[in-house]
Formats: sequence, C-alpha cells, structure tokens
Amino acid sequence: MYNIDRLFESVAAKGHVCVGLDTAAEYIPPAERQKAACDADAVLAFNRAIVDATFDTAACYKVQIACYEEMGLAGLSAYSQTLNYIRGKGGLVIADIKRGDIADTALRYAKAHFSGEFEADFATLSPYMGMDSIEPWLGYADSAGKGAFVLMRTSNKGMRDFEYLELNGTVPPQRLYHAVGNKLATIAAAHLGKYGYGAFGAVVGCTEREEAAEIRSAFPNLFFLIPGYGAQGGAAEAAALLLREGNGGVVNASRSILKAWSAEIGSSGGDAFAASNTFAADAAYRAAAEMRDAIQAAAQNV
Amino acid sequence: MYNIDRLFESVAAKGHVCVGLDTAAEYIPPAERQKAACDADAVLAFNRAIVDATFDTAACYKVQIACYEEMGLAGLSAYSQTLNYIRGKGGLVIADIKRGDIADTALRYAKAHFSGEFEADFATLSPYMGMDSIEPWLGYADSAGKGAFVLMRTSNKGMRDFEYLELNGTVPPQRLYHAVGNKLATIAAAHLGKYGYGAFGAVVGCTEREEAAEIRSAFPNLFFLIPGYGAQGGAAEAAALLLREGNGGVVNASRSILKAWSAEIGSSGGDAFAASNTFAADAAYRAAAEMRDAIQAAAQNV
Repeated sequence: MYNIDRLFESVAAKGHVCVGLDTAAEYIPPAERQKAACDADAVLAFNRAIVDATFDTAACYKVQIACYEEMGLAGLSAYSQTLNYIRGKGGLVIADIKRGDIADTALRYAKAHFSGEFEADFATLSPYMGMDSIEPWLGYADSAGKGAFVLMRTSNKGMRDFEYLELNGTVPPQRLYHAVGNKLATIAAAHLGKYGYGAFGAVVGCTEREEAAEIRSAFPNLFFLIPGYGAQGGAAEAAALLLREGNGGVVNASRSILKAWSAEIGSSGGDAFAASNTFAADAAYRAAAEMRDAIQAAAQNV
Repeated sequence: MYNIDRLFESVAAKGHVCVGLDTAAEYIPPAERQKAACDADAVLAFNRAIVDATFDTAACYKVQIACYEEMGLAGLSAYSQTLNYIRGKGGLVIADIKRGDIADTALRYAKAHFSGEFEADFATLSPYMGMDSIEPWLGYADSAGKGAFVLMRTSNKGMRDFEYLELNGTVPPQRLYHAVGNKLATIAAAHLGKYGYGAFGAVVGCTEREEAAEIRSAFPNLFFLIPGYGAQGGAAEAAALLLREGNGGVVNASRSILKAWSAEIGSSGGDAFAASNTFAADAAYRAAAEMRDAIQAAAQNV
C-alpha cells in the first residue's frame, strides 16, 4: 500500500486540509517564545500543540524545512522531532524540501528523507534537471510506500517565468508544466495505488482558477498538493476544481492557520502577550475546521 | 566586492578546478573510516586532509549537502564544520544545495546558507518556480558579496527532459535553458562585478560540447560552474569552450579527486586497507593538479 492510498483515506475521513508547519519563530505567541530556552525549542513546543489540536481536522501536515534550516542544527533537530511527533501519532507528513538533483545524489537525498532522523511519508521534488532527478526516489515507493509531490504549476507570480512558457511543436500548444505533468502521468501509470492515483503526485496551485479544471481533467491519476490558499489569494472554489470526485487533492495553508491566534486577538483588541500555545492551537483548530468546511462545500458545487 | 570577483582572482591564481566534496563515507580509505567514532567524523577528517592538500590547486570547493544529510544531524554538523574549515583558511566554498522556493521561504533559505552555522560563499539554486525564487537571495549579494550559481543546462542525461525543450515564439528557436540564461543575464547586468561577471552565475555542464561555444558567447557576463568533468564524461576541451579569455568558469570534479587514492592503489595492485587519509590527500592533489593542467592547456588552444 502506497502512502498516497493512506492520504486518500485520510482525505475521505478528515477533509482536504494540509496544515503547513512553516513555523517561523515570529509566528509563535511572544510569551511562549520568550520562556523557551531557544527558538528551536519554542517552535517544537508550538508545533506539538498545533498538531494535537488539528489532528482530526487535517488530512496531513507539510513541514517547510527552510524555517528550520534558518535556525541551524538546533532547528534541524526541531524539524526531525516534529516529523517524528506527527508520524508517532499515526499522521502523514510531507517534507517540503523541493529537492532536485541527479542519480547518486538523488539516492542520497531519498535515503536522507525517507529513512533515519528525517524520515517523512512524502517529499516535494523539483523537476528542472529532468526525470533522472525524480526516478531514483521511486525505489522507496516500491519498498516502503513513500510518495512525492513534484513541482508542476505553482502558486507564485514567478510561475509565469518558466513553468508557463509555451513549448514548440506541441498541438495544441502545451506549456512547460504540461510536459512535467505528462512525465508524472507515466510514472503514475507504472506505480498506481488502489484508489487510482499514482504513488507520486504533483504540486498545482489554486491561484489561477481558469486552468484548474483543464489540469484536473488532463491528469486524472495525479494526486495534487495544492498551495496558494488563503494568504496567497487562492479560494475554496479554485481548489475544488482541482479535486476529482471529492478527493485527489490536499490544500495547504500555513500562516492562516499558524497565525490564527494573532488574527483573533487583533480583531478583538486583545493583548498578544497574553496568548498561549493552548490558545494558538485552539485558534488553529478553528481556522482549519473553517477551511475544511469551505472546501467541502465548494467541492459539492463542482 | 562580490565573491564572484574573489573567485575570478582565485581562478587567475590557481586555475579552474573546483574540488567537489561530495564525500560519501564509502569514498574514505576503509582503515580511516573504521577507526573514526562515526561516519560523520570520518568524513570531516577526510575533508580536512583533502582541503589541506589541494588548497593551492583548487580555485574553490563545492560541498554537496545530500552526502551529509544522509547521515542525519551528525552529518549536517560535519557539513557545517567543513564549510567553516574552508572559509577559516580563506578559501571559497559553494554550498551545493539547489534550493528553489518562493518569497519568504527563499529569504529563510538565504539566511540559512549565507549566515550562521551553514554560511557559504555561494549557493546553487534551481530556477523552476521562477525568478521570485532567485531574487530574494540577491540581498546577500549587495550586503555581503554572496553569490549563486543557478541551474541552467546541466550535465546529466535527464537535461533533455525539460531544460532542452524548445520554446514557442522565439526566433531563432530557443530552449528553456536559454530563457533561464536570459533572466540571469539581466540580473548580472544589475549586479556586475569588477571583472565583468555578474554576482550570480549559472551551472552549465561540459558534457555537450557542440553547444558550449554558443552558450559562452550568448552569455558573456555569466560566470559558469561547470559540472560533468571526468566521471560524467566531460573533457577539458569542452570545459575550455565555456571559459572566456581563460577565466569565467570553474570546473567541478568530485569522485575523480576524492577517490584518486583508490584508483592509484587499484592500478598498482596495492591493498586498499593500507591507504591513509594522508595518502588519499596526496592522490587528490595529484588528480587535481593533473586536471588543472589539462584545462589550462585546453584553454590555450581555444
């Protein structure tokens, strides 16, 4: 059984929310940050509170390694412990590492992130260098069920610089992200899970709704990791267009969930220094549940 | 002064060799590996010996983080100490991390790799997501001289999957890697060092010599990090075509230098277990010097 099958079942049970633990120290309630021995400890304690509060509301978690790397080795220890905490509870975690390197190097990265201290259930990968930077990771799909989400059409403005370029000689004209999707569809066909999705899916943002339906129908066997919701301007309606029969995608939100405590305090005129991790976790739960319900409602109208 | 200027001067003084410290534990003489407390310690001791022996022969070093990540936190500590050792001696080091993520995340990555425990002089970056994944790093070029090499046309077979695709609407037809190069040329013009090279250069492999001269003349202001030499099949002649007036590029070799000890022992019928780090470092020096001389000879024939 591939992890993508477990993710499908998790979506069916809990909805489409992927909680992004892109936990910058400045997102943490200041009193909690101040009382921790160091920022890395503060991040780990905050993450545990968020995971506990959102566990029944989140299909999975995505951990952005950059937020941990910027704290050096202590940060990477907190990264490792965050992954272990989620997996110890039986949750699914995506290592948002966007690795892309070839052959031997890809195998080393796969070992680093699919076993040992940094073991995750899924990794994000970047396709620029070609399929020999993706294929070495597939051994772990077959041996341990591991999955990946490969960057395809992302949610940032710079997406238009390269991903969106039209290719020569394709009829009808295709863009670079189509070429990536076509290669991933081939992988999916050869590593198909029991719910009709390949072990490796794709990152497709929900900020450009005009293409969402076309992408979904062109790549029915790709499970999508969908960024761009909330803080980046994407909406539930666009995200829903990337689903298939109510499944086939998880929608990531990070700041809008992690900083929900700050938004709630701001709108009530309260004192940020009075906020605790417990309050922040409760607010995160409310934000995640609201997002889950909005996506589910939108999915029923597709 | 940009680090790219320092690199230009280093090439003028020492030649074009970039020693790739892609130090897998299995590259180390077995007796040295066995006597170390752990693989990460063995890698660090080996790296120090290699750096000491090649310091006057290498323009710079490139450290492939995947080889360290696969050893977990202890490996990343060895990575940090390797960078510090090279920089402490006044050498230049490229963090081969191929990061590519947007906006806030890119800033966090830049902070992680251009300051603190993992501080390097240059980083490698992946352009797939667009220029908003590259531009946030430029602040460190202006404030601290830092540089980057952005993946453009790499040396692996999979290069043909995406980098090599022809774009629609360009006359004459351009490939994706040209589009990346064009964006980098714009950055170079706005951040031009004193020797005519932009603070950020490009990764261009030397495995496809037919395009090397064309790429060099199309992008005169980009300094190239050139992989693919030796173990990957690239030759001094192709690498020389990517230089400009004898400078403007460093040529990376990893295994052929790190494992030169093994090749020397193999060809003399010796016992691998008798090899020490001292012997490995001497062999690395010989391999690096031979490579330096081969590239310099080829550069004079261009």
